Amino acid sequence: MTDHRLAPDVEETAEAIASMEIRGAATIAAGAAEALATQAREIDADSPEAFRASMRAAARTLRETRPTAVSLPNALRYVLRRMDGRSVDALRGSVTDAVEEFVAQLDRAQEDLGRVGANRLADGDTVMTHCHSTDALACIEAAVEQGKEIEAIVKETRPRNQGHITAEQLREAGVPVTLIVDSAARRYLNEADHVLVGADSIAADGGVINKIGTSGLAVNARERGVPIMTAAQTIKLHPETLTGHTVEIETRAEDEVIDRKTREGIGEIAVENPAFDVTPPRYMDAIVTEHGQFPPESIVTLMRELFGEGAAEPWAEP
Amino acid sequence: MTDHRLAPDVEETAEAIASMEIRGAATIAAGAAEALATQAREIDADSPEAFRASMRAAARTLRETRPTAVSLPNALRYVLRRMDGRSVDALRGSVTDAVEEFVAQLDRAQEDLGRVGANRLADGDTVMTHCHSTDALACIEAAVEQGKEIEAIVKETRPRNQGHITAEQLREAGVPVTLIVDSAARRYLNEADHVLVGADSIAADGGVINKIGTSGLAVNARERGVPIMTAAQTIKLHPETLTGHTVEIETRAEDEVIDRKTREGIGEIAVENPAFDVTPPRYMDAIVTEHGQFPPESIVTLMRELFGEGAAEPWAEP
Amino acid sequence: MTDHRLAPDVEETAEAIASMEIRGAATIAAGAAEALATQAREIDADSPEAFRASMRAAARTLRETRPTAVSLPNALRYVLRRMDGRSVDALRGSVTDAVEEFVAQLDRAQEDLGRVGANRLADGDTVMTHCHSTDALACIEAAVEQGKEIEAIVKETRPRNQGHITAEQLREAGVPVTLIVDSAARRYLNEADHVLVGADSIAADGGVINKIGTSGLAVNARERGVPIMTAAQTIKLHPETLTGHTVEIETRAEDEVIDRKTREGIGEIAVENPAFDVTPPRYMDAIVTEHGQFPPESIVTLMRELFGEGAAEPWAEP
Amino acid sequence: MTDHRLAPDVEETAEAIASMEIRGAATIAAGAAEALATQAREIDADSPEAFRASMRAAARTLRETRPTAVSLPNALRYVLRRMDGRSVDALRGSVTDAVEEFVAQLDRAQEDLGRVGANRLADGDTVMTHCHSTDALACIEAAVEQGKEIEAIVKETRPRNQGHITAEQLREAGVPVTLIVDSAARRYLNEADHVLVGADSIAADGGVINKIGTSGLAVNARERGVPIMTAAQTIKLHPETLTGHTVEIETRAEDEVIDRKTREGIGEIAVENPAFDVTPPRYMDAIVTEHGQFPPESIVTLMRELFGEGAAEPWAEP
Amino acid sequence: MTDHRLAPDVEETAEAIASMEIRGAATIAAGAAEALATQAREIDADSPEAFRASMRAAARTLRETRPTAVSLPNALRYVLRRMDGRSVDALRGSVTDAVEEFVAQLDRAQEDLGRVGANRLADGDTVMTHCHSTDALACIEAAVEQGKEIEAIVKETRPRNQGHITAEQLREAGVPVTLIVDSAARRYLNEADHVLVGADSIAADGGVINKIGTSGLAVNARERGVPIMTAAQTIKLHPETLTGHTVEIETRAEDEVIDRKTREGIGEIAVENPAFDVTPPRYMDAIVTEHGQFPPESIVTLMRELFGEGAAEPWAEP
Amino acid sequence: MTDHRLAPDVEETAEAIASMEIRGAATIAAGAAEALATQAREIDADSPEAFRASMRAAARTLRETRPTAVSLPNALRYVLRRMDGRSVDALRGSVTDAVEEFVAQLDRAQEDLGRVGANRLADGDTVMTHCHSTDALACIEAAVEQGKEIEAIVKETRPRNQGHITAEQLREAGVPVTLIVDSAARRYLNEADHVLVGADSIAADGGVINKIGTSGLAVNARERGVPIMTAAQTIKLHPETLTGHTVEIETRAEDEVIDRKTREGIGEIAVENPAFDVTPPRYMDAIVTEHGQFPPESIVTLMRELFGEGAAEPWAEP
Repeated sequence: MTDHRLAPDVEETAEAIASMEIRGAATIAAGAAEALATQAREIDADSPEAFRASMRAAARTLRETRPTAVSLPNALRYVLRRMDGRSVDALRGSVTDAVEEFVAQLDRAQEDLGRVGANRLADGDTVMTHCHSTDALACIEAAVEQGKEIEAIVKETRPRNQGHITAEQLREAGVPVTLIVDSAARRYLNEADHVLVGADSIAADGGVINKIGTSGLAVNARERGVPIMTAAQTIKLHPETLTGHTVEIETRAEDEVIDRKTREGIGEIAVENPAFDVTPPRYMDAIVTEHGQFPPESIVTLMRELFGEGAAEPWAEP
Repeated sequence: MTDHRLAPDVEETAEAIASMEIRGAATIAAGAAEALATQAREIDADSPEAFRASMRAAARTLRETRPTAVSLPNALRYVLRRMDGRSVDALRGSVTDAVEEFVAQLDRAQEDLGRVGANRLADGDTVMTHCHSTDALACIEAAVEQGKEIEAIVKETRPRNQGHITAEQLREAGVPVTLIVDSAARRYLNEADHVLVGADSIAADGGVINKIGTSGLAVNARERGVPIMTAAQTIKLHPETLTGHTVEIETRAEDEVIDRKTREGIGEIAVENPAFDVTPPRYMDAIVTEHGQFPPESIVTLMRELFGEGAAEPWAEP
Repeated sequence: MTDHRLAPDVEETAEAIASMEIRGAATIAAGAAEALATQAREIDADSPEAFRASMRAAARTLRETRPTAVSLPNALRYVLRRMDGRSVDALRGSVTDAVEEFVAQLDRAQEDLGRVGANRLADGDTVMTHCHSTDALACIEAAVEQGKEIEAIVKETRPRNQGHITAEQLREAGVPVTLIVDSAARRYLNEADHVLVGADSIAADGGVINKIGTSGLAVNARERGVPIMTAAQTIKLHPETLTGHTVEIETRAEDEVIDRKTREGIGEIAVENPAFDVTPPRYMDAIVTEHGQFPPESIVTLMRELFGEGAAEPWAEP
Repeated sequence: MTDHRLAPDVEETAEAIASMEIRGAATIAAGAAEALATQAREIDADSPEAFRASMRAAARTLRETRPTAVSLPNALRYVLRRMDGRSVDALRGSVTDAVEEFVAQLDRAQEDLGRVGANRLADGDTVMTHCHSTDALACIEAAVEQGKEIEAIVKETRPRNQGHITAEQLREAGVPVTLIVDSAARRYLNEADHVLVGADSIAADGGVINKIGTSGLAVNARERGVPIMTAAQTIKLHPETLTGHTVEIETRAEDEVIDRKTREGIGEIAVENPAFDVTPPRYMDAIVTEHGQFPPESIVTLMRELFGEGAAEPWAEP
Repeated sequence: MTDHRLAPDVEETAEAIASMEIRGAATIAAGAAEALATQAREIDADSPEAFRASMRAAARTLRETRPTAVSLPNALRYVLRRMDGRSVDALRGSVTDAVEEFVAQLDRAQEDLGRVGANRLADGDTVMTHCHSTDALACIEAAVEQGKEIEAIVKETRPRNQGHITAEQLREAGVPVTLIVDSAARRYLNEADHVLVGADSIAADGGVINKIGTSGLAVNARERGVPIMTAAQTIKLHPETLTGHTVEIETRAEDEVIDRKTREGIGEIAVENPAFDVTPPRYMDAIVTEHGQFPPESIVTLMRELFGEGAAEPWAEP
Repeated sequence: MTDHRLAPDVEETAEAIASMEIRGAATIAAGAAEALATQAREIDADSPEAFRASMRAAARTLRETRPTAVSLPNALRYVLRRMDGRSVDALRGSVTDAVEEFVAQLDRAQEDLGRVGANRLADGDTVMTHCHSTDALACIEAAVEQGKEIEAIVKETRPRNQGHITAEQLREAGVPVTLIVDSAARRYLNEADHVLVGADSIAADGGVINKIGTSGLAVNARERGVPIMTAAQTIKLHPETLTGHTVEIETRAEDEVIDRKTREGIGEIAVENPAFDVTPPRYMDAIVTEHGQFPPESIVTLMRELFGEGAAEPWAEP
């Protein structure tokens, strides 16, 4: 591998992402895109090819900081796919333009999707939530801003109880909240008009990867006749799944599930704590993004439009 | 209302049931039945009618101690329906015989149903459990005694984590246990051969009233193609539902769901904590009792056979 | 065939049933049963066998008046199955006792089933109805008498708009009514807590024969997650279906569907107007009778208990 | 808002649309498009920007005539999105070309989609219809022209009995027709090979908005194993739903449901008469358009291709 | 174990059953019942208890000849449960009466159930069959005798092609037959009005054990909206399943699936050939017996009525 | 029709395709594309229009050799849609470029899709197969090459037992194979992690046309909770179905189902042997192509992208 100089800021951004100083899907994506702009602006290249190679090197460095993040390679893919030109200057311009466009979209993505999601809600509706998702909250908050009265049934979402955060933010937004344990979901679906969840990532086959419990909730929502939607910015789309890759599910620490002392009291048992599960597209009514709403079965078209056929790794050395 | 003397032991038993000194469905049922036998033995009656009235009075007193218990009226019903004879002696004999029969059946009911449930399990099977039920555990333990290797996936069962008790008892029975949060059920159903739950009570329309979360689990089990069974002694059958009565669902304290401090941090929200839910018969594959296994849709026949048409309250004053 | 004298009243009753002077399932059943009592009381028989033959002859005469009625043969079957004794007097007594019992049950059947059905409804529930059934109305009226607030969504029930009668009677009972066209059912199921229908007859395989449109409504109710129940006195059970017979569906006049003039305007088309359809048991949650509620799959047990194995025609000549 | 001159014909067209002199989805769309062409031809503009502003003003005027029509904004969107050029002449040419193209497509759209729908039907098939849709009829008529023998089961479609019009037109096309009440649909689905309906509009999430009763019919068709298709020209696609907007369902006059006198006889009841309902995409097998057939889940792709991302209102003032 | 003399004929019958000289569910059942009658008639017993012991010994001997047969223990159970009396003569009479009754029922069972099944079929119906069952054929033949025109679609039923036998017998009964491979079932269900199968045995939970492929066919029949029924005499009911026992599925020789030579050509692979599978009750519409038709969920009631609670082995030594 | 000279090689290729000397979907497609390149290279044309006409003539000749093949018109469509240019030379170049591109894609298509399909499989998975498909096998073989341990359950696939070929090739790839009869599928789905099939062709409505039995298997896979995927190169997409055309199902010889002698023994029966059936998109989880994986509902978008709106026959004379 050739040695390509990286702009100092790129190295710093890479380190900040790796150390989780920069975190959150959108913040990582913006940081990575801006690092590419910095690289484009600061690096002298004596040929278009050298420029391209230098950009790919920067992207590789950034890519390797968090191998399982979804928004990071999406940012890199978005920018590199739009790098175009016959001169170094033209190339540089195409990169900075793409970054600007990407970041601008990112900045207003949550607000845009919030409006889309809000439009699906009617005045007087009750919404059931699972876990904590700022994209999902943006939909309810936008509905409230539209003047609609919305109530929420919030599942606590064991083991980490992110439902408590959701409950607090909804209360602050003026939404009456009822908190329930996860097991009570089917009973309270009789009082819900919508189920609304976020996503960790979305696969090409329409599967929604989200906090453990989402798929069971979706099956119950269908059985109870309640529509369910996912709110997710397009940086959550997972283009690597276009080539059939399944999303690896993170397993988290056992002590999120049971404290050490209780466990020792019980004796020798296993504890398993997968963080996410996959909801098949047939149990999801709509995916709400900043580009509008989509049936899960057609999200693959949007994914290819934004990020290409996905097998491609535009940062790979030729 | 006539004043009927009650044997002192009946009053004591009634108090012990009311104060929850006597508790647990089977213990209450046995205590109530034996109090009727005591009443029959100790009370002098100068006519068959006086004897009958005195027995009904004893039953009424016992009945009123715990208006929502299911096993208590079942015990009373079982005995009073078998009270028969033309003389006080014959009546007395019929009561003590019925009590003896009832208690004998009760004594071996869990063991009998355990064998029935165990027969449904095959060597090498993995069983998913919800909450803690000694009837359900009896099935797994009997299977282990039959020499079958059984593994268990134990849902923790928020809010009270009775899954911890289940996990401990299964471990003691030599069953390898994997503990999961309730939300992980659908994912682990892929590895389960059976779902096995107990029941708080069983309704005439085949509905199974059990710990909150059972119905959602049953819907998911059906969707994943995993059979589900309820283990329940017949004292859990609820003959009052024959007349269409729905079972009232107990609502429990909020602080089982969220501790006060966290809640105050969140601000003004509602917390709801229903203890049970109802699983429709179409999502349950079998009900395992000490009289054998039944499809839920036919349990009404067993209920009528054991306890009559149910509208009847044999302790009521004529 | 031997010539058996019939009491004049039996002939009169038979004529009144045939001419539809006596009509309505319960009225026909009561009339037929009472005609058998008259026959038993008024006919002199010189041997038990002659008495039995005379009773069978009376039953045959009554049976033939309305070959497709369900309640009529049920009344005859109920009484003749209980005819027992070694002397003419004993036989006569068994018949008049059976008639008395049958009529007494019939008299309070609707009130009894009304209470059962009412118990399934909760305060504040909204009930969707199809067609007009006094058994179904009895459930709602009993609920109102229990002090529950009930609202109703009434389908008009083309082609004969019996929903208008239902709407009027519910309004008189103080129930707020919303009238809709039949096609609007799925939309309004979102606001209904129960669907409640009557039955023309109920088959041994659990199928419910009722006004055309019931089965489509039941499929939609299941899809929307709304429970559905049938209210039907046991004189609606159809024991001939025990032997596999399917219930013949009456076809009614075309001009119930379209007036002659409109039809002539359209030109040469066929118009079909079946009066009933069959709802499979898997789409019905409960059958409410005066003997309590039953899952449709277990109604066959009640049918055999009340009317025997059904192939038997106890009025047939030996 | 700047004052833009409108060509007199545009004002006339606007008035004719507002007064419903021009009506029917296709006629409105064609009228609006041609008004834009007139505006382009007749208006002098001294700069490209003035031309654009004038075109937007014309579109706005037309748009406001019928705020809930779907085909009207689609026509405007189609044309304005294709307005392109650096000079007034070039802009003018692009508009008149786009209008010509739009109208030409519109002219043959029904014939084209009729052929597509006809290809899905086989010789000897029986088709069940709901309401009256010229797009749906075009499919059956094209099948007849292809030499296929087709029979029809026509639901009368209360409350306005548009099934009578369908019956008459099919009979004129030589199709044997059987007319039934709406409630008889499930029974006659056993004899149907296809269900064929039109659409009022089609949403981005694949939902089909059509005459009340369509969704209940679709659920029954799926349950009976009968495929169901919607025939709809692409002017029925509803791009505003891309941004999550739900389609408002028109409520029509009560006296369509029940005549005043009958109602007064019944007493104080509510009557509700929604004109349409929404069929979820999972119950619809195909949407047949002049651009070919599509699964409902992919119609969003066609919608974006024809009309853009939908949030855009190309007639809005910048 | 005491040594009890057996009548020579009992020993002979036992040998004939063991050697499969006597075979077929009904022939075995009749043979075993008649051997009990012989034993009752021929054995001298000096006390009622000795008589009972001798009968149990005979039953044990017969029971052991074919441990997996279902009809054999049913015959023994039926007779021994009806053995009653205080003297040897009374006991003997009760046994021979029970045998006579059992054999008489057995003789006409197939004809009786054939009529029940035939009543479910309508003139002009097409019936799909799987495997070869004389009970199922009896239904079609009875329908033909009732004058109904019936057509059949016969699945060949690999690996042993019992469909060929079914095809031949139906052709002889005058039924037009279409033979298809098993995989073509779903396609031809579109042309079938009923699916009709037999049973190897029927379990207390309503499961139907029948030739491999039945359960997959039943799932497809439900999906296509075609009703499916099982024709089975009550000697096929499996009372041991009342106690939860699952029916062991016979695995048959590999060379039924693939001939040795082909297999050797393929190389080292496994071949599995289970003879039966289990159809859950929710996919079966009716079970047709000589006692009438039953929903599968209520067959447990008939099973208990005929054979008791099943755990009981009335031939066991006290 | 004008007479256009064809290059001799085109005629030869056409004959070889017609005589089935060239066969297999990919070989036919490559042969046809290359014949177009030959035609482009070898034919002198004095005008662009003459060149175009000559190319269309060549395409027509090739098209007519096998009217029902899918890959053949796809190859022609792919190339002719890319024919572009103002001079004969430019046109010629565009054709030879398009052919080169098409053939290059075709060459690596199976390998590419194999990797996509393999990515959906996990180490330790068991895959059930139906029939024999090199595309499906490529997925399993690629998974094995990725180092995953895969086991296979192979359905024999009557009537032609292509499962034997699949079994042999999988064994050669080192995959442990269990062979079963088709009817055993539902039972063995309990042990399968995936179902994997190929396709004969894929329709615009998402329907998968494949070997008879696929649709019944897919319905069972859904019921058992097992995901199912189709592996198919895009030459299997059937653009004619965009215009609603249904794919005609080939009927094959009866003696594939039953040998003549057995049939004569049975007597006069019909034997039907359709080669394929259609699996609705709702029962298929993913379609795996060389362009990545797609939900079946979105395959129409890929079809339009590759082959246009499909009604078009670019070889037709203008």
